[in-house]
Amino acid sequence: MNRESFAAGERLVSPAYVRQGCEARRSHEHLIRLLLEKGKCPENGWDESTLELFLHELAIMDSNNFLGNCGVGEREGRVASALVARRHYRFIHGIGRSGDISAVQPKAAGSSLLNKITNSLVLDIIKLAGVHTVANCFVVPMATGMSLTLCFLTLRHKRPKAKYIIWPRIDQKSCFKSMITAGFEPVVIENVLEGDELRTDLKAVEAKVQELGPDYILCIHSTTSCFAPRVPDRLEELAVICANYGIPHIVNNAYGVQSSKCMHLIQQGARVGRIDAFVQSLDKNFMVPVGGAIIAGFNDSFIQEISKMYPGRASASPSLDVLITLLSLGSNGYKKLLKERKEMFSYLSNQIKKLSEAYNERLLHTPHNPISLAMTLKTLDEHHDKAVTQLGSMLFTRQVSGARVVPLGSVQTVSGYTFRGFMSHTNNYPCAYLNAASAIGMKMQDVDLFIKRLDKCLKAVRKEQSKESDDNYDKTEDVDIEEMALKLDNVLLDTYQDASS
Amino acid sequence: MNRESFAAGERLVSPAYVRQGCEARRSHEHLIRLLLEKGKCPENGWDESTLELFLHELAIMDSNNFLGNCGVGEREGRVASALVARRHYRFIHGIGRSGDISAVQPKAAGSSLLNKITNSLVLDIIKLAGVHTVANCFVVPMATGMSLTLCFLTLRHKRPKAKYIIWPRIDQKSCFKSMITAGFEPVVIENVLEGDELRTDLKAVEAKVQELGPDYILCIHSTTSCFAPRVPDRLEELAVICANYGIPHIVNNAYGVQSSKCMHLIQQGARVGRIDAFVQSLDKNFMVPVGGAIIAGFNDSFIQEISKMYPGRASASPSLDVLITLLSLGSNGYKKLLKERKEMFSYLSNQIKKLSEAYNERLLHTPHNPISLAMTLKTLDEHHDKAVTQLGSMLFTRQVSGARVVPLGSVQTVSGYTFRGFMSHTNNYPCAYLNAASAIGMKMQDVDLFIKRLDKCLKAVRKEQSKESDDNYDKTEDVDIEEMALKLDNVLLDTYQDASS
Amino acid sequence: MNRESFAAGERLVSPAYVRQGCEARRSHEHLIRLLLEKGKCPENGWDESTLELFLHELAIMDSNNFLGNCGVGEREGRVASALVARRHYRFIHGIGRSGDISAVQPKAAGSSLLNKITNSLVLDIIKLAGVHTVANCFVVPMATGMSLTLCFLTLRHKRPKAKYIIWPRIDQKSCFKSMITAGFEPVVIENVLEGDELRTDLKAVEAKVQELGPDYILCIHSTTSCFAPRVPDRLEELAVICANYGIPHIVNNAYGVQSSKCMHLIQQGARVGRIDAFVQSLDKNFMVPVGGAIIAGFNDSFIQEISKMYPGRASASPSLDVLITLLSLGSNGYKKLLKERKEMFSYLSNQIKKLSEAYNERLLHTPHNPISLAMTLKTLDEHHDKAVTQLGSMLFTRQVSGARVVPLGSVQTVSGYTFRGFMSHTNNYPCAYLNAASAIGMKMQDVDLFIKRLDKCLKAVRKEQSKESDDNYDKTEDVDIEEMALKLDNVLLDTYQDASS
Amino acid sequence: MNRESFAAGERLVSPAYVRQGCEARRSHEHLIRLLLEKGKCPENGWDESTLELFLHELAIMDSNNFLGNCGVGEREGRVASALVARRHYRFIHGIGRSGDISAVQPKAAGSSLLNKITNSLVLDIIKLAGVHTVANCFVVPMATGMSLTLCFLTLRHKRPKAKYIIWPRIDQKSCFKSMITAGFEPVVIENVLEGDELRTDLKAVEAKVQELGPDYILCIHSTTSCFAPRVPDRLEELAVICANYGIPHIVNNAYGVQSSKCMHLIQQGARVGRIDAFVQSLDKNFMVPVGGAIIAGFNDSFIQEISKMYPGRASASPSLDVLITLLSLGSNGYKKLLKERKEMFSYLSNQIKKLSEAYNERLLHTPHNPISLAMTLKTLDEHHDKAVTQLGSMLFTRQVSGARVVPLGSVQTVSGYTFRGFMSHTNNYPCAYLNAASAIGMKMQDVDLFIKRLDKCLKAVRKEQSKESDDNYDKTEDVDIEEMALKLDNVLLDTYQDASS
Repeated sequence: MNRESFAAGERLVSPAYVRQGCEARRSHEHLIRLLLEKGKCPENGWDESTLELFLHELAIMDSNNFLGNCGVGEREGRVASALVARRHYRFIHGIGRSGDISAVQPKAAGSSLLNKITNSLVLDIIKLAGVHTVANCFVVPMATGMSLTLCFLTLRHKRPKAKYIIWPRIDQKSCFKSMITAGFEPVVIENVLEGDELRTDLKAVEAKVQELGPDYILCIHSTTSCFAPRVPDRLEELAVICANYGIPHIVNNAYGVQSSKCMHLIQQGARVGRIDAFVQSLDKNFMVPVGGAIIAGFNDSFIQEISKMYPGRASASPSLDVLITLLSLGSNGYKKLLKERKEMFSYLSNQIKKLSEAYNERLLHTPHNPISLAMTLKTLDEHHDKAVTQLGSMLFTRQVSGARVVPLGSVQTVSGYTFRGFMSHTNNYPCAYLNAASAIGMKMQDVDLFIKRLDKCLKAVRKEQSKESDDNYDKTEDVDIEEMALKLDNVLLDTYQDASS
Repeated sequence: MNRESFAAGERLVSPAYVRQGCEARRSHEHLIRLLLEKGKCPENGWDESTLELFLHELAIMDSNNFLGNCGVGEREGRVASALVARRHYRFIHGIGRSGDISAVQPKAAGSSLLNKITNSLVLDIIKLAGVHTVANCFVVPMATGMSLTLCFLTLRHKRPKAKYIIWPRIDQKSCFKSMITAGFEPVVIENVLEGDELRTDLKAVEAKVQELGPDYILCIHSTTSCFAPRVPDRLEELAVICANYGIPHIVNNAYGVQSSKCMHLIQQGARVGRIDAFVQSLDKNFMVPVGGAIIAGFNDSFIQEISKMYPGRASASPSLDVLITLLSLGSNGYKKLLKERKEMFSYLSNQIKKLSEAYNERLLHTPHNPISLAMTLKTLDEHHDKAVTQLGSMLFTRQVSGARVVPLGSVQTVSGYTFRGFMSHTNNYPCAYLNAASAIGMKMQDVDLFIKRLDKCLKAVRKEQSKESDDNYDKTEDVDIEEMALKLDNVLLDTYQDASS
Repeated sequence: MNRESFAAGERLVSPAYVRQGCEARRSHEHLIRLLLEKGKCPENGWDESTLELFLHELAIMDSNNFLGNCGVGEREGRVASALVARRHYRFIHGIGRSGDISAVQPKAAGSSLLNKITNSLVLDIIKLAGVHTVANCFVVPMATGMSLTLCFLTLRHKRPKAKYIIWPRIDQKSCFKSMITAGFEPVVIENVLEGDELRTDLKAVEAKVQELGPDYILCIHSTTSCFAPRVPDRLEELAVICANYGIPHIVNNAYGVQSSKCMHLIQQGARVGRIDAFVQSLDKNFMVPVGGAIIAGFNDSFIQEISKMYPGRASASPSLDVLITLLSLGSNGYKKLLKERKEMFSYLSNQIKKLSEAYNERLLHTPHNPISLAMTLKTLDEHHDKAVTQLGSMLFTRQVSGARVVPLGSVQTVSGYTFRGFMSHTNNYPCAYLNAASAIGMKMQDVDLFIKRLDKCLKAVRKEQSKESDDNYDKTEDVDIEEMALKLDNVLLDTYQDASS
Repeated sequence: MNRESFAAGERLVSPAYVRQGCEARRSHEHLIRLLLEKGKCPENGWDESTLELFLHELAIMDSNNFLGNCGVGEREGRVASALVARRHYRFIHGIGRSGDISAVQPKAAGSSLLNKITNSLVLDIIKLAGVHTVANCFVVPMATGMSLTLCFLTLRHKRPKAKYIIWPRIDQKSCFKSMITAGFEPVVIENVLEGDELRTDLKAVEAKVQELGPDYILCIHSTTSCFAPRVPDRLEELAVICANYGIPHIVNNAYGVQSSKCMHLIQQGARVGRIDAFVQSLDKNFMVPVGGAIIAGFNDSFIQEISKMYPGRASASPSLDVLITLLSLGSNGYKKLLKERKEMFSYLSNQIKKLSEAYNERLLHTPHNPISLAMTLKTLDEHHDKAVTQLGSMLFTRQVSGARVVPLGSVQTVSGYTFRGFMSHTNNYPCAYLNAASAIGMKMQDVDLFIKRLDKCLKAVRKEQSKESDDNYDKTEDVDIEEMALKLDNVLLDTYQDASS
């Protein structure tokens, strides 16, 4: 409402009250102004009222929301469904232009502002999370894998001879495929076992660099966040190798923003050596839906090159999600989440330690992994070769998600490459194990339920083993839903008793 | 966003684009300003974007949405559920103050504005709909019956001797109960049969006035909108009687705003005689949820007295609904709905005429009723005494809602008063019949489906009658849902084939 | 989704996953079934997902949401605005029928269920809050005042001679007007001063009963929740008088559900004497928007009589709000709110005590009032007769809402009755004072901000007094908004510094 | 609600009503079952009620919505902001797995179903729109350009020698960049002028194929939808060349689904020759927000290869949008939009023809372009070299979006390639011109406003030309917003008078 509207309002109800209302409006506007001027995540989270006002104000700056607009182009931001328009707060034009995903759109000043501000906020958070010297970053509406591919495709133009990417092994398909998709040949460097940990084999990396010749190497593609017993790559040393040999360095920091250790590694790597870009998932670090990533780096112009490599416009949806989330949380809210995650990690670690010892197993000692933990499943595995996968299936049925059992000897072929010991990041890890992670947003209740259900499942598997009875979980496939429902009621009853006690 | 915010925006994206966005904002604001300044329903409906911006702007003027507010009272507009807050657009304080439902609240300038504007818009629409000289009105969050009660309670203070309300009979419980609830004795004036129509017995009214004495009569309580074959009361003549004897006159105009005839009657009554207030339903005239009414009148101060009679605050929900609806429709949209209703009335009338003749029945000739129609059920009734109610039940099962069958000889006691021929507005209407109405928002598809299903039901009842078979619709009560579901599938299949053909 | 849909789903994605999804659905359904079967507030609040599923399921049982419905009545639940439909979760038919606000609607099985369940839940909560022997209750979409009126109107039919209502004075307009509106003559019983407290003058009540004669008295209308230094009426003794003389007893329990003391008084009153109905606000006790009340009592049939006295249908909106709120909170959530309120009361009490002493004032000793507190403004008042109201205005400007200053000697006429010392519940309270209350939902931050701002205001008033300078707050009325905005910036800056520190 | 819940409901309200409600539920379920079983777009659009029920049912099948779930992984679908969760209907897990964007997720049966059904519906619509023999397709959350890149990257693995992409020139940056990003060298084939039209130079294409050698050519990259005077490529002939030389053929069908001509070309191309994949924008064809595309083809396994080439999970947002849209519209609704678009094309064509003749210009004769039109700006251009761009700027300021002015002689370098006559698809088009398009969703009002404003702008430019006065539009950059606002008021006033007349 403008000055005239307020004046009209004063004639309808008491001027003093309207003025106070008008004042109150100014306090919302003040927050918005600060955001636009500083481009930083506000310390205290905004309430929904300010947030929706802000989004509304931005949206009406887009031409599809102009009251008098007439569109005669092929892309006018028309929407057939009111439900769809509303869920996007009427931002329809996406972000970017044909030339550049970070470019401003003439038809959509509001969406363009949204994009700029989001990137600015995200940059602020990356600094806050530990990479203080980051120069630029942008949100891209693709998950981590495809974003890595985009980085590799950008590097191709700078390194015409390059055919290989040096890649310390991590058994996760999409980061492997990101190299294949970009058309390069991954050169897998096996990890070395140090204690329980699997760590980067630096010598092998350097040897391979010399063997292939730096010019034929597109980049080194290293990883921070990963499942124990693998631990984050030795980024500092890799960065130094990259600097020495003039090889680019791309870091897969998938869910590393939530860990000060991962972020510190990146900061240090960039300080002492070379890191060209580091890529992180939006959903895994910011508790938003799957589908976005942040590409960040220490050289402004290289990051701009990547953003210019994306051909065409893109969905604004991941940017909108992270913008809403960061403005709701404020930097204090985000810091609180980081702190709680760390505490949950200790708690989870202690609980698994206790439980594992009760079953003659142990928590693997992986001090370099700040997020993921692993507990051995030795005794289970010795008895019965299917027991480990059966445990996984039982946990799934009991609504434990994210716990991963890793049996020995799994072999998998991905895009023509064969991985022995797949899932365990090495050809022959000494034992089977189970992973659990303390990721951002985890609650104490998650840990407690997990431990309780794991305990029950382990007990059940042991009992079955001793009876040498068959696994009856595979049979469920043939069962009628109703029948199964009745059957599972006991499990569920159990589940909810757990949950409410 | 204020000037500084736009300036900051210009530094982030191109100034030219931001300025155009800023311009676009002004066009929304322009509409809002016009509304606040003129207090009239805009001709063209607003789009959702302007509407939500407006509601948002109003809401942040309420103290519960102040960013820096601290509340130490017993009523601070706190909301426990975010879902609830959102569905009310964060208007929590309701409308009115302890003294007056139209009063302004210091804590809630926005809600107060909302209330004022809504009443202003509604007044505009009442004029547009035909009552040009209406002086004042207000929305009250009670349905028609309770709103009539409030009018009677207000009159009580002006007419200390009064004990009776003169009431030309209309068989609708809540308007009868509105008098009982207010503590008065309804004096029922039976209608007279003129052709097929049931009309006001003016002589009986005047005789009763003389018999009881004007001072002992609180008011005459007349009705416009009603089911055929009853027709709107002779408002002009009643208004003249009221004027002559100095008796107040309250008109139940429940769903009369949608009919220019009903509105014209009120306008004429007020011109030639006396009408103190007329009450209309929000849901029936404005296609909003049940729960609100408009109390309107020709004397500003009497309407204010009524609004001051309501003790305490009240729900803003019906006001909000009608505000959203009128701003969405615009006066042109509302006029279009009125026009379509009239056309549907003709169409429905023709279709019933045709159908009734095919079954040796006829459409009752009720030219004074602009909304409701009746078709005789003579042949049905003659054969079998339960056939009429069975038809009603069959229509209900086939998802025909609002069609009312009126058998002969129904007797009902309401609050101690016995009505013979209940539902038919008279002791002995010549025949059983079926009602259908063309109300605002009705679609041609409604009429077509109704005629098709009524045809099928009449056919079925006839067939059964000829077989003298039992009605098997009452048995469903004992049937298991699943069984019934299977059984009714044929009916439903039928129903959807109807609907889609 | 039904069995066939799940089966089709299994063919599209893995059966095992679909089955687990299907299982998950059962757990939501389980909660819904429990609610429908037991009619009690669940202990743990539901998440939004279950809640919205439930509302959605209910809504599609209403005829306006039938896919094949055709409507030919005058009230078919049609909605013009999609925004309006959505905000009501597509419940359009309201609650009740013409005969009874608690009656079931044939056209709206879902809304009818919603109404029944809400009333059942609310009854459960009233028991939980301390009135264990309550027999029945219902939600009515009118605020407390009009609900009291409805009770009085119902009693009228049972007590034809009655003209008076005995009413221990409480200076709140709507409860006074509730009697006027119902057409009765309030007989005001002045309170007696005991220490700092104003308490019921039982002797005066009984004397008045004898003087007027029980048959001429409609009821005694007592009050629990009120502003200090008035305290809740002596309900037990009043209930005994009512029982002895055969006089009905209606209790205004406006915001008393949140206080175990108020609820205990009602429970005790009913046990030892007579209470016919007690009325409480929805918004003040359940943190929902203004506009609903609960009418409850110990005699099932009397409560039904009241519900039958409401003529016609009514808004479902307040019922929906309280249903959503209670299902979200669960009984544990509600109990937690009650507990926190109690703690905040102690905290507020201590803080006011401290502050008042710093200004040579004191906290009034009102141990019988469990919600409201009062701090004297003696020194302020002595100096300058406008200082007290100026303090109120300053607090208002600083976004302190709900703090009430009560100067001496205010005289007000309400509906023809003149009250001396208005706002203070007595003709001559010894001193001016300021009220603050600890109501449900209050946060420690509210208290801290209030104390901080009150401190500043007191300081400022003192300073002005000593300078004998003029109050410049009244001048703002003439000031241009922009100018004022600049001026108030300091106040606001202050305000937000308060809020964030 | 399950059987027990309905039974409990029957005890609360009348069984007959609950049963009817239960029946009504079945009709929603029936639609859902049909969708899951057939996988086809329903003929009639669903109402919001069914749609939201369906989405809700799917969402509760995802593990993040399980009531008893405990998550110990790194990606558990946790959401920090309730606003974000709600706007995604609580679908958080995205679509796909690390291996394949079309794969099923164990943690998210509901999202997986959503993905499958969306792809199935979209396939149905592509058939309906004219490509009857399409074999498979999938929605990818990237816009057209990046989707083309993905196709090229997939082909790379099948054609290890390939370095070139043959590309009949179209001046649109993102499709050019899609080849660069994929790491290939575009071989630009200039168009030939036939009458006013720019058409594919088939001889040049074939000559180039022979010159470079088929094995060194990754594919031919052709285009359907484009701005006049360019017209869709000669797909049939190109497809035959591809078949003859064994070269893959990728078609950029960006906004061609809306045109039966474009779709027919693809169908014919596939029938007589070779088309491997055709890519279309979601937003441009289905009126959803920017950010998604459909990759479709005639060979199921090749389309699967592409989907497996996408590394990792992806946003479900574009899929959700198109699902909501298609279910809301139904196939009939979509067909209606296609029909209206065609009619608007004729209308726009006639209006431009008339207007152009009034200014001594003419509508270019481009009968092969079914969507875009061009009007010469000869007279304008002759007079003043900046007049053409000034016209563009004036149209922009007057809220005409999508109208493109194409001056002569524009030169642009994109990724190192220089294009003369950029924007006009040829080095030297005979004259400057202005484009307008009739795209899906365009309204008659758009056309009328466009013609009116274009008329005014042309008039104004002419007048200025005759005065040889300077263009004052560039100066606005330095102007204060408020000032500019006042200035532009006349323009706006104009704009809205246009819009409302």
